[in-house]
Parts: sequence; structure tokens; C-alpha cells
Amino acid sequence: MPTSPRAVVLLSGGLDSTTVLAIAKNRGYEPCALSFRYGQRHAIELDSARRVARAFGVKNHVVAEIDLRVFGGSSLTGQAEVPKDRAALETHEEIPSTYVPARNTIFLSFALAYAEVLGSADIFIGVNALDYSGYPDCRPEYIDAFERMANLATKTGVEGRTKLVIHAPLARMTKADIVRTGISLGVDYALTSSCYDPGVDGRPCRRCDSCRLRAKGFGEAGMEDPLLLRFGSG
Amino acid sequence: MPTSPRAVVLLSGGLDSTTVLAIAKNRGYEPCALSFRYGQRHAIELDSARRVARAFGVKNHVVAEIDLRVFGGSSLTGQAEVPKDRAALETHEEIPSTYVPARNTIFLSFALAYAEVLGSADIFIGVNALDYSGYPDCRPEYIDAFERMANLATKTGVEGRTKLVIHAPLARMTKADIVRTGISLGVDYALTSSCYDPGVDGRPCRRCDSCRLRAKGFGEAGMEDPLLLRFGSG
Repeated sequence: MPTSPRAVVLLSGGLDSTTVLAIAKNRGYEPCALSFRYGQRHAIELDSARRVARAFGVKNHVVAEIDLRVFGGSSLTGQAEVPKDRAALETHEEIPSTYVPARNTIFLSFALAYAEVLGSADIFIGVNALDYSGYPDCRPEYIDAFERMANLATKTGVEGRTKLVIHAPLARMTKADIVRTGISLGVDYALTSSCYDPGVDGRPCRRCDSCRLRAKGFGEAGMEDPLLLRFGSG
Repeated sequence: MPTSPRAVVLLSGGLDSTTVLAIAKNRGYEPCALSFRYGQRHAIELDSARRVARAFGVKNHVVAEIDLRVFGGSSLTGQAEVPKDRAALETHEEIPSTYVPARNTIFLSFALAYAEVLGSADIFIGVNALDYSGYPDCRPEYIDAFERMANLATKTGVEGRTKLVIHAPLARMTKADIVRTGISLGVDYALTSSCYDPGVDGRPCRRCDSCRLRAKGFGEAGMEDPLLLRFGSG
């Protein structure tokens, strides 16, 4: 049996990255998962990442420690309130306070290091340019620019070696498309968590941007969110 | 008195980054230094970084903790021997084992986060494409690609905001030029350290790539290295 090529999958344990993991596996890759403990207040998502990785039989799962609190600058890593019921969510008119400076660039940089050590030429990331919160580092032109830079940065990119590809399979999908795709690939979304400000038991707040985008996705796909079923309707 | 614009300077405490700090200050910026504890075996360089920052009156100096050992893959962060007296140093024919996967990309990503939080549009890095060890992420085309990506990644890069610039003032300088420039700007190179495998007292090994490139620089500039004078000729 031929060996599957390895791919690094950035895995937060949320809806998007879990779907990406399923897509990478479905495309014939052996997914190697990379998660971060970065001072996020919703560190409970790491438990979800571990559950998801186990459910997909992932053999290599690295949790990298990086302290983004050293710079401050985001309500996701600081003491400030996570905004709830934000009116500008649909319009992308402002960049919300939950934006963590350069987060995807830092995450992709670590993925690049991991890929190089694994001998992998494929990185998967769950950015999405339609149903998103207005973060600049989720745009397709950003991902293209990162890929170009990455091919100049590493041994992989040196002449004659395999080209490194950043896969962003959700880039042009709606949240409903993402949910439908995941369900068709056997994702159990009860294992995932999306909330920026969950309760100690992991109960989602249902009012932050991330909870609202998730609810929109399940609603438009005409499905119940199994995570909400787990926590009851209250 | 008008305020100087802030610039993030990546400061390892070595010869190159210290010279870059002096250049940034000389160009009218208020340098904000960023150093890393990344599992390097030569962590003594952080002491040099602190000494250098103090000598230049730097008010903001962040030391970020990142554990690159989680991936393995380099003799600079692992248990393997640092290569000495390497024949390929001059020819750049191979990428040496001291190469840390994606290191400059990770460092620049953190600099990008710091710049964004500071409201700075300028990042300085001491990469050098002439007298270097053959690392792919020291080439000017790599730095250009990073800058392009960075301008798509961040709030700064969103339409109408200031363009972020990655300054690599040493890119096309020889080590001798770098030494001469630093001396002319008042750098005390006795404060710096370059060795990949120093003794516990900070004494340089004189045989790793970094020590040899440094010696070449002082030699071609016709100067004595004050660091070697500090440790005696032995």
C-alpha cells in the first residue's frame, strides 16, 4: 500500500478547522495536526482539538506554546470583554476587537516549520472569506501571498525542491456549505467548539461573532447543531 | 520636539542585529526591540540583547517565548553537535544543520504582531545575503515577499492605512561593511555575541559558521574584535 503524503493541518478544534481536517483526509493526505496554546481565553478549544484529532485517527498532533499576550492588543487574549451581538458582523465594516494581531501569519509560520521538519509540502488552513468576522488575514489574496513567501523562505522552496502549497479549501464556501461538506465527510460537530467566550463546561455563549456565524451555518444548512443539542436548548 | 516614529527591531544581541539597531536609531526611529527565547542552545545571546538594548536607551524590549524545539530539525535547538570548520561555508552549496526551519518567518510574524500593537509601520531585520550561512530565508527576494504578504495580513495593510515596510539594511553589505558601519555609529561590539556554541562564560568557540563570519568581517575591516580582546587571545 503506498504511503499517504503528510499534510500539516492547523486545528483549533472549531467547526472550520475540523472540516478542513476531514477534507485533507478525504483528499488522501495523512493529516498531522498543529494547535496552539496562545493565551486564548477560550483554551477549552484545545480539548476539542484533541477530541477531533483522536476521532480522525491523527498520529501526529503538536500543541505549540506561544504567548501572544506579550503584545496585548486583542480581547481574545486580554482581559477586555468579548463583544456580543455586534451589529457590524454582516457588513465587515470594522475589524473587531477579537482580532489577534498577525495571528494567522504566526500560525502559518509555525505550520511552515512543522511541514519542513515532516518533509511535507502541504499545509491546510480553515480561513474563510465569506462568512467571516472581517479579519484581514482571512482573505484569499493574503493566503496566496503567504504561499509565495513560504516558497522563498524554506529549504522546500530552494530550486529543484517540491513546491509548498497552502490549501484553504473553505475560502469561498459559506458556513452552510462548510457544515454540509463536513457532515458528508462524517464530521461529528458535537466534538468541536467555536465560542470565543465559553462557560467552564464548554457551553457556548451563543452571542459572540463565532457562535452567531456557526448558528447561521447550521440554520442555512437546515440542520440542528449537535453541540447545542448536547447542552440543551437553554 | 516631534516624536520619533517607532520601529520594531529584531534583536538577537549578535553583531548584525546590533548594527541594525544602531542604523534604525540613526535614521530617526525610536527602536522597540524584540528578542526570542526559542530553545536555542546559545541562550546567552539574550544577555547580550539586554546589554545592547540598555546601551542604546531602548525603552520597549519584549522577549517572546516560543518553543521551536517542539518540531526538532536543527542543531541550534537540538542535541546534535553544532558543525565546526565547515568547508561549504564560502560556497553556500548546502543548507547547514544550524538552519532553524522557518525561523525568520516566525520572527518576522511576531514582529508584525508587535508592530501592529505599537502602531508602527516599520520593522528592521539584520538579514544579510552576502556573508551568510546559506539560509534560504536571508535572501532579499524572501524579504520582499514577506513585506508584500504582511501588507495583506494586518489592519495596517487594509486599504487607506500606512504601508508596512520591512527594512533589511544589511542585505547587500559585506561583514566588513557591517562592522565599519556599526563602529561609525558608536556600536560597542564587546557587548554583542555571535557564537552558536559559546562557553558558559560566553566565550566564543571561534569555529562555528557564525564565529568565522564575524572574524572575517573584523579582519577585512582591518579591526580587532573587542569581544575577542575581552576574552584574551587564547
